Amino acid sequence: MGNRINTTMQACFFAISNVVPKDEAIEGIKKSIEKSYGKRGPAIVQMNFKAVDMAVDNLFEVKVPDKVTATFDIRPTVPAEAPEFVQNVTAKIIAGEGDLLPVSAFPVDGTYPTGTTKWEKRNVALEMPVWDSETCIQCGNCVNICPHAVIRSKVYSPDLLADAPSTFKSTKSTWKQFENTVFTLQVAPEDCTGCGLCVHVCPAKNKKEAGLKAINMAPQPPIREDEDANWEFFLKLPETDRSKLTISRVKDLQLVQPLFEFSGACAGCGETPYVKLLSQLFGDRALIGNATGCSSIYGGNLPTTPWTKNQDGRGPSWSNSLFEDNAEFAMGMRLAIDKQMEFAQELVARLSSELGDELVQALVNADQSTEDGIREQRERVVILKKKLEGSKSVDAKILASIADILVKKSVWALGGDGWAYDIGYGGLDHVLASGRNVNILVLDTEVYSNTGGQMSKSTPRGAVAKFAAGGKPTGKKDLAMMAMIYNSAYVARVAIASSARQTINAFLEAEAYNGPSLIIAYSHCINHGYDITGGNGLEQQKAAVDSGHWVLMRYNPDLTKEGKNPLIVDSKEPSLPLENYIYKEPRYSIVARSKPEVAKKFLELDQQDINLRWKLYQNWASMQFGGDETEDKGEES
Amino acid sequence: MGNRINTTMQACFFAISNVVPKDEAIEGIKKSIEKSYGKRGPAIVQMNFKAVDMAVDNLFEVKVPDKVTATFDIRPTVPAEAPEFVQNVTAKIIAGEGDLLPVSAFPVDGTYPTGTTKWEKRNVALEMPVWDSETCIQCGNCVNICPHAVIRSKVYSPDLLADAPSTFKSTKSTWKQFENTVFTLQVAPEDCTGCGLCVHVCPAKNKKEAGLKAINMAPQPPIREDEDANWEFFLKLPETDRSKLTISRVKDLQLVQPLFEFSGACAGCGETPYVKLLSQLFGDRALIGNATGCSSIYGGNLPTTPWTKNQDGRGPSWSNSLFEDNAEFAMGMRLAIDKQMEFAQELVARLSSELGDELVQALVNADQSTEDGIREQRERVVILKKKLEGSKSVDAKILASIADILVKKSVWALGGDGWAYDIGYGGLDHVLASGRNVNILVLDTEVYSNTGGQMSKSTPRGAVAKFAAGGKPTGKKDLAMMAMIYNSAYVARVAIASSARQTINAFLEAEAYNGPSLIIAYSHCINHGYDITGGNGLEQQKAAVDSGHWVLMRYNPDLTKEGKNPLIVDSKEPSLPLENYIYKEPRYSIVARSKPEVAKKFLELDQQDINLRWKLYQNWASMQFGGDETEDKGEES
Repeated sequence: MGNRINTTMQACFFAISNVVPKDEAIEGIKKSIEKSYGKRGPAIVQMNFKAVDMAVDNLFEVKVPDKVTATFDIRPTVPAEAPEFVQNVTAKIIAGEGDLLPVSAFPVDGTYPTGTTKWEKRNVALEMPVWDSETCIQCGNCVNICPHAVIRSKVYSPDLLADAPSTFKSTKSTWKQFENTVFTLQVAPEDCTGCGLCVHVCPAKNKKEAGLKAINMAPQPPIREDEDANWEFFLKLPETDRSKLTISRVKDLQLVQPLFEFSGACAGCGETPYVKLLSQLFGDRALIGNATGCSSIYGGNLPTTPWTKNQDGRGPSWSNSLFEDNAEFAMGMRLAIDKQMEFAQELVARLSSELGDELVQALVNADQSTEDGIREQRERVVILKKKLEGSKSVDAKILASIADILVKKSVWALGGDGWAYDIGYGGLDHVLASGRNVNILVLDTEVYSNTGGQMSKSTPRGAVAKFAAGGKPTGKKDLAMMAMIYNSAYVARVAIASSARQTINAFLEAEAYNGPSLIIAYSHCINHGYDITGGNGLEQQKAAVDSGHWVLMRYNPDLTKEGKNPLIVDSKEPSLPLENYIYKEPRYSIVARSKPEVAKKFLELDQQDINLRWKLYQNWASMQFGGDETEDKGEES
Repeated sequence: MGNRINTTMQACFFAISNVVPKDEAIEGIKKSIEKSYGKRGPAIVQMNFKAVDMAVDNLFEVKVPDKVTATFDIRPTVPAEAPEFVQNVTAKIIAGEGDLLPVSAFPVDGTYPTGTTKWEKRNVALEMPVWDSETCIQCGNCVNICPHAVIRSKVYSPDLLADAPSTFKSTKSTWKQFENTVFTLQVAPEDCTGCGLCVHVCPAKNKKEAGLKAINMAPQPPIREDEDANWEFFLKLPETDRSKLTISRVKDLQLVQPLFEFSGACAGCGETPYVKLLSQLFGDRALIGNATGCSSIYGGNLPTTPWTKNQDGRGPSWSNSLFEDNAEFAMGMRLAIDKQMEFAQELVARLSSELGDELVQALVNADQSTEDGIREQRERVVILKKKLEGSKSVDAKILASIADILVKKSVWALGGDGWAYDIGYGGLDHVLASGRNVNILVLDTEVYSNTGGQMSKSTPRGAVAKFAAGGKPTGKKDLAMMAMIYNSAYVARVAIASSARQTINAFLEAEAYNGPSLIIAYSHCINHGYDITGGNGLEQQKAAVDSGHWVLMRYNPDLTKEGKNPLIVDSKEPSLPLENYIYKEPRYSIVARSKPEVAKKFLELDQQDINLRWKLYQNWASMQFGGDETEDKGEES
């Protein structure tokens, strides 16, 4: 039954409470089941009936012992090694004693410490993935897809294994640039939700035992203690040198520390893999404005926050303003940074005689378009700060306090489709038109997820949602194409389960583009009405792409400078009939069952939309850019 | 000097007031002129210098007589025949005595009487157009373009001329369907602003006197009294029977009474011809939600309102909510009407036995897609109301009070680009996506006009506006194409001076489309920095189209039902170099003069934008719709 115990417990309650005669109660419950689930088909109804009957049949009395016989204590809310603030404030709130905290216990400016979810062990998984080091091909797919960043891998010197716990696993690594190293894939047992996405994406097959892969689910309780120790040991192993990685490859990216971990998102969440990816790629220099929605809840849910920092103490700064103004909020961050950068450069120039012209020129003219360039600038800022320590001038003191701004920052506006397509669209459009370097990530679940599944302009025609009980009558808004029309914003549509490579490329290109960028990311969601764990959500992502509902594309205006067409359609021509995609989801199939004629019409119109849109994208992508104007004209008219 | 007397008067003041020595003052004034107008070029500076010098040279003293010698009184604020409310309330406010009015004098629910601008004679024209009945070809161009609806024409029986004033003009009419009638073109002398747009659009040439047309400017004072009498006589002539006209023809449309007249818009306003057109076509059944902006000021400026009603007492109901919510506001009107219509139909059906089945069926199933259909429904409602008079049932009484809703209404959201592209865009997009039958008219001046010329997302790259002092660095938002992407809204881009016929068709198609419609109307504006009167604004409209900056187009999703491409590009391929259009306007040329290199770059980018956009429109318009899918695919890939 998993977490769906209401039907069972309700039957038990009426069977023993005698509030109404037992048989009458059970009959009433079954009528209610018929009413609630009738639309979902007879199979679902029968399953619920069976749950009720079996619950009553297997009812037995549990005697409460006279005294406590357990020999263990409840664990402290957070472990002893947690930092002071977590001990004094966070733990109190976790324990439900937040009301007892004095106002003085809270940060005076509202700035909360990050990286605190790791102290709140939720321990919700009945089963957890277990690594088979022999079968593993070290591809990184499982690390990449894990919504809660509980699967990590490292490459390190075998010497470090000397102090390893006895059950700690490792194997020879397969990276050419890391000679004589070993590889470990480790799961955080008490942070894992047991969603099983990792197992689904594993491409390796255990040759000895059919059906097993290089990562397999196993009951958590028996191995929890060992894996706890292994996880602790794993965390102490050094992080891989990022400069030696090609981070656009999933294989290499798995070695990059995520700076977003153990959030409270649903098991199998379709949004958080994108958020984690963002944190891996740009987290150590990111500022994030988060719209209200799921991502603001799992991203900043007091008392703990999943956004964290690396060994250098660098991590994203994150804030949530409102539902309706998030793009503007992030643009405000951008404007502030640009102004501070300008001011810092001015001060650097003014202190030229103290700092030396060479350092000044290098700092002011630094090329930070690559990770290497950024790293070099970071080193320069260290030198700058050292030089400033000796100075007593006011300028030097001010510069010392803002010197870090000389390192390139990455500004992101992040939120769901309710924000981006609807409530915050006016502002989002304004940012797209502004020319400012703000990156926008839309976690598109095609519905207002956090508020309980209301229709947004992203909801496709025919899908059931709140305010669209009979299926949404109008088509899905094509936000990507609307943004393309500016021809001055980077735009991408991605689905990580369909193409992780295309997704990573889109993130890298978006961030590198010196102007506004928009990434629209397909995110399966429990609001689609099915169990998204295991392979279900991931397969639906692929089907969305294969059916042409979700066209993978990238639009990079910089390509026009090279005389190229800015639009690249990454999807193949739709090959899957739309119905094979949509009717696997109750949000669509519920209409097909209750109003087949209406559903048929929806399907027909949706298919027309898909055909038209595919044509439009193909047309655009095949236009000639630059080159001889006259020739172009000849071709298109 | 017209209305630009500040330079003259300032010079006179300093020349006689001795506040500072005269020569010093004049020198200071000239320095200030150089500073203010230097960017506009030496010719403008010299003209201002000359104005100062001539003012001082021609200064002479006017003796104030000892006693009043005039033999006439100041006219009453409004004439004696004005209705009671206008006499008691409107006139007081016009006279500046509004503060003396008791609260009880005002309408209890805020509903103001319409059609009151006609009582406020502004008398601002020094010159007014005079009709030459012999040269006139009765084309209707002058009536069509007049921003203040002061030029009207009628076709009527010559018998009616018996009581005409001696200077009243008429000529044989040229309509085949109106045999034995005469035609009169009449100007309202005291409502005319003297902008001269009418003269510019007149295609007729006086063969006797070179340079004269069928309508020509002449000093107003000498002819005012005669023309006042002529105008009064003209108004009493019967309106033309609309059912005998083809209202998509400018020639016929001139005979349709405008229900928007004598507004306080600028002389030569580029917006009001569209507003007037809307009032002619749909005014007798229109509900208008007006965004804040010029159109809300000239459209609802207390104490008088230019929206008026016809002889049957029918005219637009109009309201202004806020800047940011106007599309939603109009959608609210739509929802209310739809609900009322539903309720009225329900009541009609419920009263079937009293009303008779034939009438009930006719009322409920009326085809109101044409003007004839609407007229027939109006007649049915008259019959319905008569029948209801006799009934004492509650249903009948309720139905009688809402019976008019059974006649098709036309809902419009109206406003400028500041509303539609910027502040209210989120809501406008929401309405476009809603599928609801709301018509949206955007009076696009490419700048926030009423608030003093701030940049909007409609402002083109390189144009100077407030917040874009050096020329806007980003391109113009293509709102039309963004709306097209829904493929469920009617979209048109029009410029009445470039093609009145295309404009009228777009209005008719938009209103007929049973879903959201968007019309974006090029509106020249004083904020573009030049004198828009005479032919200037009109010629710039044409140049905008000819250069490809303003692509005339119509997108009608209904065409896909016939297997046709919904996009029709009405413009011809751009033939005018962009610079020949833009540099006639100071908003662009000011940059070319002050920063030629920057302007050159702007021009280059704008030209690229135009080329790309033309390609995109051509590409879209040449896509095959419907037909054989396989064939289509072959063509585009």
